[in-house]
Amino acid sequence: MKTAAPSVTQPRAIRVHDDDNVAVVVNQGGLAAGARLDLGVTLREDVPEAHKVALADLAAGDRIVRYGTVIGYARRSIAHGSWVHEGLIDPPQPPALADCPLATAPPAPLPRLEGFTFDGFRNADGSVGTKNILAIATTVQCTAPTVKHAVERIKAELLPRYPNVDDVVAIAHHYGCGVAIDAPGAAVPIRTLRNLSLNPNFGGELLLVSLGCEKLQPERMLGGGALKVLAGETSVAVLQDAEQGFGEMVAHIMALAEPKLQRLNQRHRVPCPASDLVVGLQCGGSDAFSGVTANPAVGFAADLLVRAGATVMFSEVTEVRDAAHLLTARAATAEVAQAFIREMAWYDEYLRLGGADRAANPTPGNKRGGLANVVEKAMGSIAKAGSTALMGVAGPGERVTQKGLVFAATPASDFICGTLQLAASMNMHIFTTGRGTPYGLAVVPVIKVATNSGLARRWPDLIDVDAGRIATSEATVEDIGWEIFRLILEVAGGRKKTWADHWGLHNEFVLFNPGPVT
Amino acid sequence: MKTAAPSVTQPRAIRVHDDDNVAVVVNQGGLAAGARLDLGVTLREDVPEAHKVALADLAAGDRIVRYGTVIGYARRSIAHGSWVHEGLIDPPQPPALADCPLATAPPAPLPRLEGFTFDGFRNADGSVGTKNILAIATTVQCTAPTVKHAVERIKAELLPRYPNVDDVVAIAHHYGCGVAIDAPGAAVPIRTLRNLSLNPNFGGELLLVSLGCEKLQPERMLGGGALKVLAGETSVAVLQDAEQGFGEMVAHIMALAEPKLQRLNQRHRVPCPASDLVVGLQCGGSDAFSGVTANPAVGFAADLLVRAGATVMFSEVTEVRDAAHLLTARAATAEVAQAFIREMAWYDEYLRLGGADRAANPTPGNKRGGLANVVEKAMGSIAKAGSTALMGVAGPGERVTQKGLVFAATPASDFICGTLQLAASMNMHIFTTGRGTPYGLAVVPVIKVATNSGLARRWPDLIDVDAGRIATSEATVEDIGWEIFRLILEVAGGRKKTWADHWGLHNEFVLFNPGPVT
Repeated sequence: MKTAAPSVTQPRAIRVHDDDNVAVVVNQGGLAAGARLDLGVTLREDVPEAHKVALADLAAGDRIVRYGTVIGYARRSIAHGSWVHEGLIDPPQPPALADCPLATAPPAPLPRLEGFTFDGFRNADGSVGTKNILAIATTVQCTAPTVKHAVERIKAELLPRYPNVDDVVAIAHHYGCGVAIDAPGAAVPIRTLRNLSLNPNFGGELLLVSLGCEKLQPERMLGGGALKVLAGETSVAVLQDAEQGFGEMVAHIMALAEPKLQRLNQRHRVPCPASDLVVGLQCGGSDAFSGVTANPAVGFAADLLVRAGATVMFSEVTEVRDAAHLLTARAATAEVAQAFIREMAWYDEYLRLGGADRAANPTPGNKRGGLANVVEKAMGSIAKAGSTALMGVAGPGERVTQKGLVFAATPASDFICGTLQLAASMNMHIFTTGRGTPYGLAVVPVIKVATNSGLARRWPDLIDVDAGRIATSEATVEDIGWEIFRLILEVAGGRKKTWADHWGLHNEFVLFNPGPVT
Repeated sequence: MKTAAPSVTQPRAIRVHDDDNVAVVVNQGGLAAGARLDLGVTLREDVPEAHKVALADLAAGDRIVRYGTVIGYARRSIAHGSWVHEGLIDPPQPPALADCPLATAPPAPLPRLEGFTFDGFRNADGSVGTKNILAIATTVQCTAPTVKHAVERIKAELLPRYPNVDDVVAIAHHYGCGVAIDAPGAAVPIRTLRNLSLNPNFGGELLLVSLGCEKLQPERMLGGGALKVLAGETSVAVLQDAEQGFGEMVAHIMALAEPKLQRLNQRHRVPCPASDLVVGLQCGGSDAFSGVTANPAVGFAADLLVRAGATVMFSEVTEVRDAAHLLTARAATAEVAQAFIREMAWYDEYLRLGGADRAANPTPGNKRGGLANVVEKAMGSIAKAGSTALMGVAGPGERVTQKGLVFAATPASDFICGTLQLAASMNMHIFTTGRGTPYGLAVVPVIKVATNSGLARRWPDLIDVDAGRIATSEATVEDIGWEIFRLILEVAGGRKKTWADHWGLHNEFVLFNPGPVT
């Protein structure tokens, strides 16, 4: 894609791989019948922006290839120059998990990258925060309004005296009671809450608010192991202990908060190597450009991070399921590949019990954005993971301590994925989007990368990086990859603010509870 | 229970039904071994407050009877005067649904109650609001922070000009995308969101915020039928239409809000008969007193409401499951009984798929509060439903239009139950609690009734009614029932504020999604 920048008014389509028999229209507003592509094909009909055009004549049943991979089969004959839309494509079966190759082609390590640093908050356990936040967690949802009331008062009355503390965040959620807490699925939300409270941005200080009679008692939520990992101190306020009503509850929470604010306020940013980053990758509102522009650029940045010794997590089971055979081959060891297969198999069964499968993933917006099905979406999605060996796999809500590229198994739902990546100990988040979403998290900065320049122009105060310049040849994948890498270091070090943080756009935590409510 | 008030320092225990072979200790702090109960039994060991004492010698396998119903079987022999704790009781099987009697004993109608009114906001469709709220609903969770940002600005900049509008509430939730929207379970959250937007407290005005590319598109959420029911107007803001970023999105939402505020501001409270009330009943943090004090008093108030022509909903499937045979017998028709059985069977299967059953319901707090198992909890819980015939059954998230006593099937989880009752068109909420919970809803007032006076004394600024006075014989079930009924009319008419509204303690909406996330 390193060509001289053409005028974007010339008809232009992108073919990703030499084997592809479809290409994606780049021009904003699409192209009209009769337009002659630089790939040597003339359009027989109008093709919308980001949608696919046939580069060859296809017979019914022929393989449709993008990213060098079969994304489906022609439902009927398709002449070259035709619009290859969703209705013309029969999706393939997902790769059989039993046949996936185990660590057959782990890539060799890339050259080590030295000398990149950011200013972070070093924790006693060695982890590094990118923000300095007082977290007030809850064991159970009924306490949430009380905690939010207390958080407002703490922000207004106490926080101004502690200028080194960035924020006070309530870890509120919908779990803790009215749930089948001994069901097999309960392990996931419980460990998520436990590990969420250990996020490096909380500095080892935790204030936990319990009602007193809930199913998820504080000891069960925290667990012995988790308490040992916590470098700082955990305080628990039990609302049902209040003898003088609501005022006493709020006063108690505020009294427990103050010494924590004092300790957090002692923290200062110090230079930390890029290897202290734990970067979570996600995409949302994807289009057909995601796999050509933003995701490959993030993949290049992921490789830079891995070369610098950092942890890079990718996630979203239903969006990698169709690429399972490629990822197991890339695993560093057979054990890692088997752990990956276990997570795929568990999710297959979870969906089956609910009467669904991975094909439930794509949205109307994905489809309007040119993504025909979950296979095409998956092939674009895994581009985020770059090219290095898969070093580890974590189940939903598990903590990640491994360096290098790690698969943290999560649903693809943006907020559940974000919450689970926070529990996995993420301290920076990269989010690529084609259709656009005003997504944000309170706990870590979220850098939003647009897959197309149209979105970046329309939403100048929400999008942090425009990767659409790759499609128009104004920049290369490598250019944008370096730009993202450098922006991560700047934002992690507190020298630059994301748009989501500028506006305070912070989505709620959403737990993944595969168990029933009662 | 109409006896002269004894000193609460005298040993006292309550036997609910003549057939009961256990009674519940009333004295705060419990009773010590040697205490002689007014029921003629001397304690052999210490028994905590609200826990059960054996009134007769029981052999292993003997039936343990409370509320005239078998709540379990003695695990070993139990001498009279012993503490009958959870560990001594084997729970019974739930009633077989196939054997439940169909409408065999519907109670005769009680005398009609006339002349009770409250000042409500009358809607064009005949429903009546107890508050006058501008609702800003979302189709999908990613828009929530943008909506909350807009709501804050509307409250600060626009609301002061519209003094007859009580509040602006964001109907935010975790559904809409990243979910298997065609799975069988998806019908429940979708119809819940649709019916939630029709709650009478929103005056038929709805402002809906969509991202644009989400799975739950506005047309699908609202549906043709729902739009027809809406008396007022629905406006939809699509964030992805914004050409100039975040500022334009917020300005667009505010511009759509203003004419709605103008129309809502024209509304005034007018006298309405008590028959316009739609009262949702719920309990949370129950103890062994719940079924003796608060729930029977609420049941008496429910009978008064039914006599006045109102709708009274009770819910919480896992807490009525063990009383299914009693409720099907009370159904007005065989069809109503069969609809009730259908809801029970659906939930049995839902729990089975998740590896749980109804026994997953009780909490550690319930058990510390003396409730041995879900059977004992259920027998206390259904006391809320009073004594009238069961007139109708609604599935989770369905709208209730039936007058009289209705079962609205919901999980027992407080917030899910409250959200589903709001969707069912509730305009007043009664919540009984033994252990205590600082629960509240933004959309309708929540009257909190304590089952014991200890809680009412400890939480004077959270509990609205002390039903514990029944246990100490300071008041009768009828006294407290009338007090609750009159308080409902006062609060519904805007003449009195609940403690939850005083503090602004408003729990988030929580949708019931039996389908998988993707």
